Amino acid sequence: MTRYKLTIAYDGTGFAGYQIQPAGRTVQGEIERCLAVMHKGGPVPVSASGRTDAGVHARGQVLHFDSSLAITPERWIKALNALLPADIRVLDAQEAESTFHARFSAVGKEYVYKLNTSRQGDVFQRNYASHFPYPLDAELLDAAIPHFLGTHDFTSFCSARSEVEDKVRTIHHLELLRDGADWTITIRGDGFLYNMVRIIVGTLLDVGQGKIEPGSISELLRARDRTKAGKTAPAHGLYLNRVFYEE
Amino acid sequence: MTRYKLTIAYDGTGFAGYQIQPAGRTVQGEIERCLAVMHKGGPVPVSASGRTDAGVHARGQVLHFDSSLAITPERWIKALNALLPADIRVLDAQEAESTFHARFSAVGKEYVYKLNTSRQGDVFQRNYASHFPYPLDAELLDAAIPHFLGTHDFTSFCSARSEVEDKVRTIHHLELLRDGADWTITIRGDGFLYNMVRIIVGTLLDVGQGKIEPGSISELLRARDRTKAGKTAPAHGLYLNRVFYEE
Repeated sequence: MTRYKLTIAYDGTGFAGYQIQPAGRTVQGEIERCLAVMHKGGPVPVSASGRTDAGVHARGQVLHFDSSLAITPERWIKALNALLPADIRVLDAQEAESTFHARFSAVGKEYVYKLNTSRQGDVFQRNYASHFPYPLDAELLDAAIPHFLGTHDFTSFCSARSEVEDKVRTIHHLELLRDGADWTITIRGDGFLYNMVRIIVGTLLDVGQGKIEPGSISELLRARDRTKAGKTAPAHGLYLNRVFYEE
Repeated sequence: MTRYKLTIAYDGTGFAGYQIQPAGRTVQGEIERCLAVMHKGGPVPVSASGRTDAGVHARGQVLHFDSSLAITPERWIKALNALLPADIRVLDAQEAESTFHARFSAVGKEYVYKLNTSRQGDVFQRNYASHFPYPLDAELLDAAIPHFLGTHDFTSFCSARSEVEDKVRTIHHLELLRDGADWTITIRGDGFLYNMVRIIVGTLLDVGQGKIEPGSISELLRARDRTKAGKTAPAHGLYLNRVFYEE
């Protein structure tokens, strides 16, 4: 058996999320279906770096699986892309160490959140960026950003439904880039709690509208209370961009 | 009655084309349905600068219609966008002269054709750019481009199904821009024949692959024979970007 590491992109619009579930089309379901075809029906379970919710996109989700097929990485890419639906693409395949694990070996992740701030919205981005046509002060967002950096307990920025006990995470990078009406928030850290990026973005939108003071982010973190932070921003603006592993 | 000029954008993916037809969802059909709602069911015919085929997008299609409703342009935008489906947006509305005609007053148009030249394709562009993963020499395209500029009989670059008699058109601007794997061809002219942009792009792709010499474009134009030019490039890479009118 050889362990393979796959890097995939998917358009989350047509999926009920990454993870396989009883009803609804899922990314994992499609991948496992194609791997089963290649393995003459035998089940080939895949493990991902983490789940993504319905509507959330990926430019660089990472998976691993084990296979006894003697196929080069280049052939894995071709064969899977020939079988997969058009809204999932395999970008890269590599042989991995048998100890490699898409989730447990990950040392960090990068997410991107896209906002379209135009008045009427962009018809081509309606599933790929969150439309936010209200006044936003970018300087207020820029003033809030440094308060998120570093190691904090992110309980206030985590879905109350999360069952994870340790809510301490480290954010290495958080940046707002503006290109006309298209705003992009990039965030990198050692790990993210359930809905964490979307709640940080929702809170930044409150900051940009003057509803939350940039300087009160630290207080908000200390409160460890989800109800103190902003709303969870919509799923369709979010992209899992990269997963980092130690070399 | 007041004549109104509308500028609209649409994602062509979900439409059987611009023009209303017996079966299939059309852009014109959706617009006229919404205008009928605003006019208590009375029919309000709209005229466009031209048709677009199934899958073709628009960032700046122009329409006109007449209405007895006393509504400000700003309110037309809001009211129509509230009624229209998410894949059509009204970007602008203006009162126009009673002699203004979206098609006959137009003095030029700009189209954009998007190519994605990456190996595996971009899952987010599968409906918004034509995937062309074969070797292409941009210098050959750049060498061919000047031969299209100016006034020519474009019979070789027009669908054989076209019933237009005068096939002489003037191209003012034709440009290839490359941003990594994303190639954009922009073309402006006084008017375009049926499939003309898509056949020019298909021919440029033959040039870029070395199948047609850049210098033979003039000969191709003189031949006035559709079979001499390249294939018609796929619809979903094409955007009607702007329609020009005299001030």
